[in-house]
Amino acid sequence: MPRPTPRARDTPADAAMIATRLTERFGLTAPIVSAPMAMVSGGRLAAAVTAAGGLGLIGGGYADPRFVEDAFRDAGNAAVGVGFITWRLDGDDTALAEALAHRPRAVMLSFGDPAPYAERIRAAGAALICQVQTVAAARAVHAAGADVIVAQGTEAGGHGAARATMTLVPEVRDAVGAEPLLLAAGGIADGRGLAAALALGADGALVGTRFWASEEALSHPRHRAAALATTGDGTVRQRATDIARLFDWPAEFTARVLDNAFVRRWEGDPEGHRAVAAREAEAYAAAFRDGDPDNVGVFVGEAVGLIADAPPAAQILQRMVREAEAVISGLGQKRR
Amino acid sequence: MPRPTPRARDTPADAAMIATRLTERFGLTAPIVSAPMAMVSGGRLAAAVTAAGGLGLIGGGYADPRFVEDAFRDAGNAAVGVGFITWRLDGDDTALAEALAHRPRAVMLSFGDPAPYAERIRAAGAALICQVQTVAAARAVHAAGADVIVAQGTEAGGHGAARATMTLVPEVRDAVGAEPLLLAAGGIADGRGLAAALALGADGALVGTRFWASEEALSHPRHRAAALATTGDGTVRQRATDIARLFDWPAEFTARVLDNAFVRRWEGDPEGHRAVAAREAEAYAAAFRDGDPDNVGVFVGEAVGLIADAPPAAQILQRMVREAEAVISGLGQKRR
Ligand SMILES: Cc1cc2nc3c(=O)[nH]c(=O)nc-3n(C[C@H](O)[C@H](O)[C@H](O)COP(=O)(O)O)c2cc1C
Ligand SMILES: Cc1cc2nc3c(=O)[nH]c(=O)nc-3n(C[C@H](O)[C@H](O)[C@H](O)COP(=O)(O)O)c2cc1C
Repeated sequence: MPRPTPRARDTPADAAMIATRLTERFGLTAPIVSAPMAMVSGGRLAAAVTAAGGLGLIGGGYADPRFVEDAFRDAGNAAVGVGFITWRLDGDDTALAEALAHRPRAVMLSFGDPAPYAERIRAAGAALICQVQTVAAARAVHAAGADVIVAQGTEAGGHGAARATMTLVPEVRDAVGAEPLLLAAGGIADGRGLAAALALGADGALVGTRFWASEEALSHPRHRAAALATTGDGTVRQRATDIARLFDWPAEFTARVLDNAFVRRWEGDPEGHRAVAAREAEAYAAAFRDGDPDNVGVFVGEAVGLIADAPPAAQILQRMVREAEAVISGLGQKRR
Repeated sequence: MPRPTPRARDTPADAAMIATRLTERFGLTAPIVSAPMAMVSGGRLAAAVTAAGGLGLIGGGYADPRFVEDAFRDAGNAAVGVGFITWRLDGDDTALAEALAHRPRAVMLSFGDPAPYAERIRAAGAALICQVQTVAAARAVHAAGADVIVAQGTEAGGHGAARATMTLVPEVRDAVGAEPLLLAAGGIADGRGLAAALALGADGALVGTRFWASEEALSHPRHRAAALATTGDGTVRQRATDIARLFDWPAEFTARVLDNAFVRRWEGDPEGHRAVAAREAEAYAAAFRDGDPDNVGVFVGEAVGLIADAPPAAQILQRMVREAEAVISGLGQKRR
């Protein structure tokens, strides 16, 4: 595990702070890591989260070396990390090499077996963060040498699986023991969720959807507007988005998106969808770039129901910490 | 809303206690309500939870007046409540009349529209508790006059829906405002979960699976043994159990059970299952009575992964409160 990076800027004396083993190990002022959201977490978002006292991760996602190069450039000198969809590295790991050349603070792997990459990542001085969706997978990544385990619940935006944050986090803690650093992911968008994550035994939170709706995120403004207008009842786990993009996702993972016309058209008809997907792939990609909120997948989690704006990432982080502090202080008053 | 019942026995001066608006309103020493689990929460369990300082609910479930009568007899003089599956009352509400004759502390309705019964329940001096699975339903039961709203997440055992506890609880709180009493349900089996529920903005927790594995529960010992041997990865939401029992559950609800041979045989083939269900209904019922863990649905939630024993209900409750207190005190030390 690399040494903590000393924080570059001074922390104002009155700034909200929550200290955990995560903040100590990484030299943070907030136990918050921003999720490596594919095509959404660019260098600006990651750098903003790190500058605000959290740990920002670049969304290396489908492992395009160009995206990674651009993102590290946009992050400047900020001590950021990067995440990859593990099974995408299995064919071609050029993007991982590109990332390691930038000496990232951490590399997060999710959705696949991290073992083939663990040694190389840690040898490059990066912390290895592994995201899991089951207790069984948590045991496996612990054995593979993960420095930080992320227990991701089904309420999360983007790809994931069936277990919920509320039970997965404490059960993973019990399964791997007190020592490994543990983050909760899925449904954490405010100080209530952050305090709950800590209560469940996590050392911090990995936050996606909340930062998806931030000024620095690469999410499309029209997608943001659609998501902010929806309650948390309006998302769904599905596979149509992977068929549309011709991605060969392992069957155990589905993706949570807004429940829109696209999902309703195709989710019940994977065979029909596969028959037209190659032909329509370019139109799908174009609609996505345009920010069409109805005819593509809008990747967000149940936490959209807790989000009403898209401010700068630093403000999101500070709000979460301040609210978590108030929640924790309120809890203390309930003890008799 | 009825007056709090003064607690019959003395509370030891050193007993763990967490005080919330729920405990104040109902005169409890713990913000814990035991779930009205159909065929599992009999009078003994409900009475034990009430005697230990929580609020015990009888599982009126499918609204069999005989079960209700027996359960209130077994509860003796304890101030317990009762719960019903709402859509089962719509045809025949004899069991509700039977329950109200016993002057229950509360009546919990779940899975259907409580409005037709709200007036009658409150007129009988019982608090009306309504369990919901979406923000939309929370708004509706608030309008119908619920005294207590239960936000039930998908990790819960038994029937439920798709939203997770982690996001549903705070979003329901925001939707209905600060005033209504709110319980979190789904995945809460220890003090970490209880503290997390309070952090999320709930006034307490409705706990099912944890009490299902208690000495007083009517769950079959062989089912308990199977559940305790399983991690939280080993449950699944499905409909095969409803087909097998010839129940006409509304399509929006599924049931979480152990993922066993029965589920794997039938969940992918509802048509084939319906074709044989009437013929096999008696054999299914007999296998259930025998505690066969493989050929029937074993109704439990993801929280099985957090449970390793089946002690008396009072011990479960005291452990949860004591652990929650320790968690809350630990959180306080993280503030800087
Ligand atoms: C738009 C979007 C893209 C995502 N892409 C990735 C990804 O490429 N790799 C990954 O490990 N996780 C990805 N995730 C999941 C996050 O890592 C994280 O588990 C999730 O956002 C946490 O739940 P939340 O969205 O409720 O905060 C993505 C999430 C979102 C919302
Ligand atoms: C065996 C079992 C039976 C249940 N039966 C009912 C029921 O009849 N009516 C009801 O409202 N909820 C029922 N539930 C759901 C509970 O009310 C509650 O939402 C759930 O148990 C909370 O999640 P947990 O199991 O993780 O504690 C049942 C749950 C279980 C485990």
